[in-house]
Amino acid sequence: MRQTAIVPTRVENYAEWYQQVVRAADLAENSPVRGCMIIKPYGYQLWETIQRKLDAAFKATGHVNAYFPLFIPVRFLQKEAEHVQGFAKECAVVTHSRLQANEQGQLVPASPLEEPLIVRPTSETIIGEAFSRWIHSYRDLPLLINQWANVVRWEMRTRLFLRTSEFLWQEGHTAHATEKEAREETLRMLEVYRNIIEEDLAIPALVGEKIASERFPGAVATYTLEGMMQDRKALQLGTSHFLGQNFAKAMNIQFVDAHGQTQYAWTTSWGLTTRLIGAMVMVHSDDDGLILPPRVANTHAVLLPIIHEEAQRSNIERFCETLQQHLQAQASAYPLQIQFDRRDLRGGEKRWQAIKKGTCCLIEVGAKEVEQATVTVSWRDTLQKTTVPVDNFVSSFVDGLEQLQQRLATRAKAYRDQSMRRMKTSDELNQFFQSDRGFALAYWSEDPVVEAKLKEALKITVRCLPQDYEKERGKCLFTGKPNCPLAVFAKSY
Amino acid sequence: MRQTAIVPTRVENYAEWYQQVVRAADLAENSPVRGCMIIKPYGYQLWETIQRKLDAAFKATGHVNAYFPLFIPVRFLQKEAEHVQGFAKECAVVTHSRLQANEQGQLVPASPLEEPLIVRPTSETIIGEAFSRWIHSYRDLPLLINQWANVVRWEMRTRLFLRTSEFLWQEGHTAHATEKEAREETLRMLEVYRNIIEEDLAIPALVGEKIASERFPGAVATYTLEGMMQDRKALQLGTSHFLGQNFAKAMNIQFVDAHGQTQYAWTTSWGLTTRLIGAMVMVHSDDDGLILPPRVANTHAVLLPIIHEEAQRSNIERFCETLQQHLQAQASAYPLQIQFDRRDLRGGEKRWQAIKKGTCCLIEVGAKEVEQATVTVSWRDTLQKTTVPVDNFVSSFVDGLEQLQQRLATRAKAYRDQSMRRMKTSDELNQFFQSDRGFALAYWSEDPVVEAKLKEALKITVRCLPQDYEKERGKCLFTGKPNCPLAVFAKSY
Repeated sequence: MRQTAIVPTRVENYAEWYQQVVRAADLAENSPVRGCMIIKPYGYQLWETIQRKLDAAFKATGHVNAYFPLFIPVRFLQKEAEHVQGFAKECAVVTHSRLQANEQGQLVPASPLEEPLIVRPTSETIIGEAFSRWIHSYRDLPLLINQWANVVRWEMRTRLFLRTSEFLWQEGHTAHATEKEAREETLRMLEVYRNIIEEDLAIPALVGEKIASERFPGAVATYTLEGMMQDRKALQLGTSHFLGQNFAKAMNIQFVDAHGQTQYAWTTSWGLTTRLIGAMVMVHSDDDGLILPPRVANTHAVLLPIIHEEAQRSNIERFCETLQQHLQAQASAYPLQIQFDRRDLRGGEKRWQAIKKGTCCLIEVGAKEVEQATVTVSWRDTLQKTTVPVDNFVSSFVDGLEQLQQRLATRAKAYRDQSMRRMKTSDELNQFFQSDRGFALAYWSEDPVVEAKLKEALKITVRCLPQDYEKERGKCLFTGKPNCPLAVFAKSY
Repeated sequence: MRQTAIVPTRVENYAEWYQQVVRAADLAENSPVRGCMIIKPYGYQLWETIQRKLDAAFKATGHVNAYFPLFIPVRFLQKEAEHVQGFAKECAVVTHSRLQANEQGQLVPASPLEEPLIVRPTSETIIGEAFSRWIHSYRDLPLLINQWANVVRWEMRTRLFLRTSEFLWQEGHTAHATEKEAREETLRMLEVYRNIIEEDLAIPALVGEKIASERFPGAVATYTLEGMMQDRKALQLGTSHFLGQNFAKAMNIQFVDAHGQTQYAWTTSWGLTTRLIGAMVMVHSDDDGLILPPRVANTHAVLLPIIHEEAQRSNIERFCETLQQHLQAQASAYPLQIQFDRRDLRGGEKRWQAIKKGTCCLIEVGAKEVEQATVTVSWRDTLQKTTVPVDNFVSSFVDGLEQLQQRLATRAKAYRDQSMRRMKTSDELNQFFQSDRGFALAYWSEDPVVEAKLKEALKITVRCLPQDYEKERGKCLFTGKPNCPLAVFAKSY
């Protein structure tokens, strides 16, 4: 068995493998501030690409960006009873507006605030308060707002990208005149999310509605996109919430309808976070490090000159320069990033660095290649070297990237599908999570006692009631109750 | 005198005029969180445009984006003595990580943190700590990082965009192997700022170095760009700091140089904020509301159909639709935003709304225009109506925008130049600030006693030692000391 670039491997220790892939690709690191991460340039570039795609999709569906305060007065949070319960347990509380030296010369908090503020864990209440002032008539609706922001939820056990006390996200907040429109918006944005997650990030998403215990605090319905990681645990990729009139009533968002009647608005909210970067790492990468789908990758190809004798250098470098220009000039749906690694390092060392950083295509150019007008190419997923005529390679390069994109999507989908199993009995489900794991599909009566037992015994939760099976009904595996929906159970992050 | 759209006018009450222009253009509003603003969609769109331009300029000069924690441990802030003095006085202090109901059912802070955290007022220390771990060798330098973020400085007297407790900004942080390189970087970014502020925002910037009392806390040298508002008060538009080795020593940023010697790095930082939006409002707008330079404007033209009889509607609307397409299709250096205002409102009402929102060009189309294939056009700065053949108008539209851009730049520069005067004696300077105000240029010995007196008596400060006059030397107006640099005094925001 050849040595892998990442130690340990996925099989040896998946959680530690993940940390090492993130580290080897230089995506992010823990900071000295408990639970907060530093997103390093190579990781932040992925977020910029995801942002660009999402932002364009939001604008194409009529949304505009705005910015609301970082701080939320405690009295706002309290206006929605479930909401405050959900977020009061883990929030950063600002209590003072100054630091002052004490007698020992230590800086201590001074000038206490009249009312404590919390750093936003989400912005339904602070944005809802603005909506209550902005909306007067049905003519002001729908109001379709998005915010790009940082949020803080004081997490005890954190993991880079997947769960951190501070993270970056977008949060959409919309208000509508009717329940129907708000429900449509909730599902429209879920579909916008699904499209980017599946088409660009190449992650198959299991889409469905959350059960009551997993709903966003204050929501009437929460829809989720669930991904399957390579340890067969689920990761929630994003959520879209139909809030009914709960927040409209809490924050007094009213409008006069076409008949002159005053009504509460219907609102939605939806969010995607920097967690998506972690999801890409966990779904696509291998024991040699990061693998990225070309549509969001930072580096599409790296040119690695192999110079054995100094006399060859100028020819090889000239060849690489020309090749870089030609590749860069190919028409593509996204800007191509082609690197020429001129650093004074061993070829093998440069190759491994590019592999660990998820470069889509590695191109080696030595004296033989220059002489024969070929390149020795390996794509990141297989790493198999083939030598091909350079002209053919250049003209098929963009196709090659698209094929890599499709291979990654197909591979991830096959893995997900293999990890998903229909359960006939509760014993079968027990067995599945004792010997193996994945997405277990089972009819389910939504009995909270059963839910608690399964959580306790098998450490599994209901991830969602999947859309694809929403018309199916059957006998609950646990209670025997008839006419129950199909639910997906899994261990999860 | 005709009625103006904004009440009061600039002459009547400049401060209140500013608030009313911001409000009438729907750019931002105060939030219920003391000192924090809500940036509304029309205002945020300006920030997005500014961000896009700056971000491209940063990347073109080799910088990459990253993201660092929102929270800074107090012990970090303390590591640089001047720095902590500058920021401890006004900062949001996080002391607890949970809210809990007390006996009266009120939510109160719970779970005190071991060490209080402050919400970043700026990130030199937290980024410096990361730099100390990232930098080992001269090969790791220069390190050129930028962060887009929100920051908090607890301001007592706030004003939308100009001074708020929370604001949005970018902060560049770089580390270099030599003093020379760090000084060059400081001035390079100052020039990047000047270019965007003058060329895109059409605001003439007086560029120079800050005197000791106005330096960034912890900097060796602070360079500033100072704008002149229409009340002849100065507004600091942006700053770039040469930090010497102060933060490198405080945060232990060391590297091994090419000779194997361990050295402290030389660092810089530089920032621009959402204040720039306020600057544009204050420099260009008039008593009818917002005026925006076309290169950053949200709306380049609005089509206003003037329909007196219902029978004319379809012809006029068809004419407008075609015109909108033709204008939108013109080749331009920036994406053109052409609106067709179909709302069921009076034409005059729609026109005033477009004027107040800073639309560059207003195009009226009635039955007569359709019949004669003309349009009645007014540009936002003059609002003079002229009727011209539609084909000529379409083909010259982009030129027209560029001319508006130049007119605004020229007008702002003329105003600034008229407001700037060389002072021969301290009496003349006294008189200038008692009867009038502006930028007063005077030789100045940097005597802090004189500085304090001028601040007290005339409410003026030294804005900078301007670059354009940096070689000039003369006798201090206040102390008679010879060979002193020329300083610019002004009242300021």
